[in-house]
Amino acid sequence: MKLTPSAAGVFPIAPTPFAPDGAIDWASVDRLFDFYARIGSDGVTVLGIMGEAPKLEPQESLAIVKRAVTIMGGKPIVVGVSAPGFAAMRALAREAMEAGAAGVMIAPPNTLRTDDQIVTYYAQAADAIGADVPFVVQDYPLITSVVMTPGVIRRIATDNANCVMLKAEDWPGLEKISMLRKWQAEGALKPMSILVANGGLFLDFEMERGADGSNTGYAFPEMLIDVVRWSKSGERDRAHDLFDAHLPLLRYEQQPGAGLAVRKYVLMKRGILAHDTQRKPGAGLTATAKAEVDFLLQRLARVDKRAVV
Amino acid sequence: MKLTPSAAGVFPIAPTPFAPDGAIDWASVDRLFDFYARIGSDGVTVLGIMGEAPKLEPQESLAIVKRAVTIMGGKPIVVGVSAPGFAAMRALAREAMEAGAAGVMIAPPNTLRTDDQIVTYYAQAADAIGADVPFVVQDYPLITSVVMTPGVIRRIATDNANCVMLKAEDWPGLEKISMLRKWQAEGALKPMSILVANGGLFLDFEMERGADGSNTGYAFPEMLIDVVRWSKSGERDRAHDLFDAHLPLLRYEQQPGAGLAVRKYVLMKRGILAHDTQRKPGAGLTATAKAEVDFLLQRLARVDKRAVV
Amino acid sequence: MKLTPSAAGVFPIAPTPFAPDGAIDWASVDRLFDFYARIGSDGVTVLGIMGEAPKLEPQESLAIVKRAVTIMGGKPIVVGVSAPGFAAMRALAREAMEAGAAGVMIAPPNTLRTDDQIVTYYAQAADAIGADVPFVVQDYPLITSVVMTPGVIRRIATDNANCVMLKAEDWPGLEKISMLRKWQAEGALKPMSILVANGGLFLDFEMERGADGSNTGYAFPEMLIDVVRWSKSGERDRAHDLFDAHLPLLRYEQQPGAGLAVRKYVLMKRGILAHDTQRKPGAGLTATAKAEVDFLLQRLARVDKRAVV
Amino acid sequence: MKLTPSAAGVFPIAPTPFAPDGAIDWASVDRLFDFYARIGSDGVTVLGIMGEAPKLEPQESLAIVKRAVTIMGGKPIVVGVSAPGFAAMRALAREAMEAGAAGVMIAPPNTLRTDDQIVTYYAQAADAIGADVPFVVQDYPLITSVVMTPGVIRRIATDNANCVMLKAEDWPGLEKISMLRKWQAEGALKPMSILVANGGLFLDFEMERGADGSNTGYAFPEMLIDVVRWSKSGERDRAHDLFDAHLPLLRYEQQPGAGLAVRKYVLMKRGILAHDTQRKPGAGLTATAKAEVDFLLQRLARVDKRAVV
Repeated sequence: MKLTPSAAGVFPIAPTPFAPDGAIDWASVDRLFDFYARIGSDGVTVLGIMGEAPKLEPQESLAIVKRAVTIMGGKPIVVGVSAPGFAAMRALAREAMEAGAAGVMIAPPNTLRTDDQIVTYYAQAADAIGADVPFVVQDYPLITSVVMTPGVIRRIATDNANCVMLKAEDWPGLEKISMLRKWQAEGALKPMSILVANGGLFLDFEMERGADGSNTGYAFPEMLIDVVRWSKSGERDRAHDLFDAHLPLLRYEQQPGAGLAVRKYVLMKRGILAHDTQRKPGAGLTATAKAEVDFLLQRLARVDKRAVV
Repeated sequence: MKLTPSAAGVFPIAPTPFAPDGAIDWASVDRLFDFYARIGSDGVTVLGIMGEAPKLEPQESLAIVKRAVTIMGGKPIVVGVSAPGFAAMRALAREAMEAGAAGVMIAPPNTLRTDDQIVTYYAQAADAIGADVPFVVQDYPLITSVVMTPGVIRRIATDNANCVMLKAEDWPGLEKISMLRKWQAEGALKPMSILVANGGLFLDFEMERGADGSNTGYAFPEMLIDVVRWSKSGERDRAHDLFDAHLPLLRYEQQPGAGLAVRKYVLMKRGILAHDTQRKPGAGLTATAKAEVDFLLQRLARVDKRAVV
Repeated sequence: MKLTPSAAGVFPIAPTPFAPDGAIDWASVDRLFDFYARIGSDGVTVLGIMGEAPKLEPQESLAIVKRAVTIMGGKPIVVGVSAPGFAAMRALAREAMEAGAAGVMIAPPNTLRTDDQIVTYYAQAADAIGADVPFVVQDYPLITSVVMTPGVIRRIATDNANCVMLKAEDWPGLEKISMLRKWQAEGALKPMSILVANGGLFLDFEMERGADGSNTGYAFPEMLIDVVRWSKSGERDRAHDLFDAHLPLLRYEQQPGAGLAVRKYVLMKRGILAHDTQRKPGAGLTATAKAEVDFLLQRLARVDKRAVV
Repeated sequence: MKLTPSAAGVFPIAPTPFAPDGAIDWASVDRLFDFYARIGSDGVTVLGIMGEAPKLEPQESLAIVKRAVTIMGGKPIVVGVSAPGFAAMRALAREAMEAGAAGVMIAPPNTLRTDDQIVTYYAQAADAIGADVPFVVQDYPLITSVVMTPGVIRRIATDNANCVMLKAEDWPGLEKISMLRKWQAEGALKPMSILVANGGLFLDFEMERGADGSNTGYAFPEMLIDVVRWSKSGERDRAHDLFDAHLPLLRYEQQPGAGLAVRKYVLMKRGILAHDTQRKPGAGLTATAKAEVDFLLQRLARVDKRAVV
């Protein structure tokens, strides 16, 4: 089953669980994917930026894909294959697809500047992975420094039949989503899925602008699922109420660099990960920061019982 | 009265009001400074990044300083003097001080990379403006691309007696504030004021980490004042409750590039600005975006009556 | 007399001469412009990046324009008006034109990324200076970090009737010149002058690719004039022989950041500037570096008697 | 035999030869290393930026190391191991050393900004590869965007006993070399080798500033060897004469992005590579560019018979 332009819903960005000695914590890997499946995720993305992918050995990366495929049985698994060279990108993409992945995600290298450079890069990447592998364009200028206009995204989508999804995490990004949806409504852009991310900071309005769902890694993916569902069903205030209740913590987790430590700490407190370890090099949380997260969880728990940990 | 290391409280970042034809809207200028004074601001910062300073003629800049000095009578006025050359920086700094300003704010040019480059730049800037002019270091890497470690900030503070304040808007920035406060407690860093900004996104915890106040331009500075006061008086939950109620709108206003349009739109709806015009070049809000802000205001008004507009 | 698309030949980039106390050295200013006129320059560009423009007061900038106009009588004077805001850009452009300048030069701010951002910026700049002011696009990614494709340059030229010249200093840049000339030959790009720069490092081949001349500040502009002339007259080896003889020194002068000190030092040794002072902040040459330049001059003097200083 | 701080002379940066179908051209690989050995190279660096390392499969990378070790028998082989993650860096470093390499070279990722970030990165990298693996710091801000002060280089050298060499290719870089050598003379910096690169553009003066040799990939490494030897033996004019004769071509080869195509084209014309192919994605030379290189070779051949091709 391959990723298609009609993909929708919530695809959590999976962190990679490690044991204190830096080895992959496979029990937590299994528990994590089981958790994603159980709460009703529509798929999962592994080996993304927040999955500490560059710290993994090739065989570790592939093993994680296989666990996701096995445990989330039938749900589409998207695999981050961004790499400084097309050889490594191609190798992981081919192996991941053979292992049962549904598609791959590609972020642009931060040296790209002009529109043509970006379009050419994706053409080369699409050629490297092969026309039979569906791919997701990751538009995340805050991290990649690469700025894609809506027109560039359209060129990439038009040039490459296997481009099926946009991971939209430009910031600000609301008008970009509206523009792409307008073009699709006018027939000026082919159908493609738009899942939103950037830590979820604008999920509430992004859904109302026409996003198909969420593709981020917030430690309470259940909230993402609820908000996406209620937004689609028109329960506007209900969606905003839950989103707003989570926003103080979500904002805390969205801090560049520090966010992953928060995410793993909360997932550990929730019993999903056994440890909040990051493989070296990775920063941890100070005692003060942990106390701040604990405080935010306590406040959240007054509204959302899932935050009782 | 000059800015001192004991400056504290809320110094709003003032936008510059324009009429639809691009001229400065002096009636709104006066109303804005009067508003800041009336709600209990402890000072104000004019001609910052969000003040559209580079779009102003030199005589316009000086006239704004003079209005602030006149209307906010006795409250310290800080003037953004960042410029690509020291000639312009010096000229504005000297003129502003003669007009009654309390100090100036300097952001680093985005070409600086190494620690020494940053430290040297501030030494040159301090020399250019003169030892009698107190200055604020603006630490805002999201916008300037210049990354200052706590150690670099300490070197700048130590080298320049007239460095009296840090505008702290690194992101994440909580641990940096803690580190600087620790050094001050240990006598390893001279006394200097730390006001926080970055749109106010972490004001709640920044105050708890030891910040002296806020130096941002959120369209409800009354909230900043309340949160700073309650945080200092130990009313923790009260501070967080109000902050959290504002967070959905505050987050919407903190969007890079788009935020100023939101801020001016809300200030206009509040009757403080007559227009939400930005001088060219400047982006406006789409009808959809305005409706989103209106929706956020309505939701906020359920908790904070000041948001009834 | 305004700058036109048929401008050609050598327009030296003028440094700004300073006395040791940092004041403008007007005697050297006059001697410099007289020198440029006497050797047969076709025009001059003042207040460029190498003219230390951001260190000048507005009235100093204007005074330099006036001296150039007076002394170089009738030759076109191009004025760098790049500024962080359009107010300052417009003010200098209008004043310079009133003082007799032929046109202005605009470099893009280093925050621009996408094709559309660059095109929009030049549209706004062209609007700010006014349709009656001819302007030069400066394409210098090594310094500005802004990368313009040939297509972007074409869009700027097409959108703005007053865009009459390209200062081509991309690196590498040979194929870009060939592409633009090809488009012009095909009628796909309007006539516009292309003068080349980047320190002159590729002047030899740039002329053969179709450049109209040189727009750089090498301390022996006579060499630029000779190479441009001989290249146009088909004396290929003669042009390369002289160029190659100068290349060791030219390369030494083209060092980013350090190059201006070399340029001023050589111009001082040649008796054109009284001092090699840069206004603060500016780096000087170490004794070792001066000895290296002296050595290069001695070697050059074996071939080009103008280097006997 | 491991790389030591006394390494000196010329270590060419080896390109990776490919056949027209993109496969590694092993016959050319062997011929290339044999050529390097025959002309008297003191070592070789493989898998650097100009070796198209990111386009290689892991097993290809290792096979190239093994060929270099076998053919250059006893000469130190340095292996570029820069990677986005420490897992891949460690894996290649360990395998290369087991295969007989003398040490590894590490360039910093272009996200590093502050002094501390750079120092920390090298500490982590040194830890990842292991204390028994000597490493080279690559200081190449033109490509990496990472600016290292002399003080940062000293901190890296001091913190890591296995840091034995600097590949110095800052631009400008002459004063940096002088500073490091001064510190070493004063005992303020441990002994470490300094080989210079940046395409060789300043080899003449870099040797006179105290460099130990050259570590670049110019298509006539014999010139590098001669200049290094004559500079060390005090034959100053002889060294400069040969360097200057090569400078027009060397400058042409040093163009960012385009330089590798020139290098491979010349090596092909010299009969060392069978093809000038770059593995995808890679730019080739236009017919005009090839004619320009041919012209430069003809002019060079008048002085250096090795350029008769």
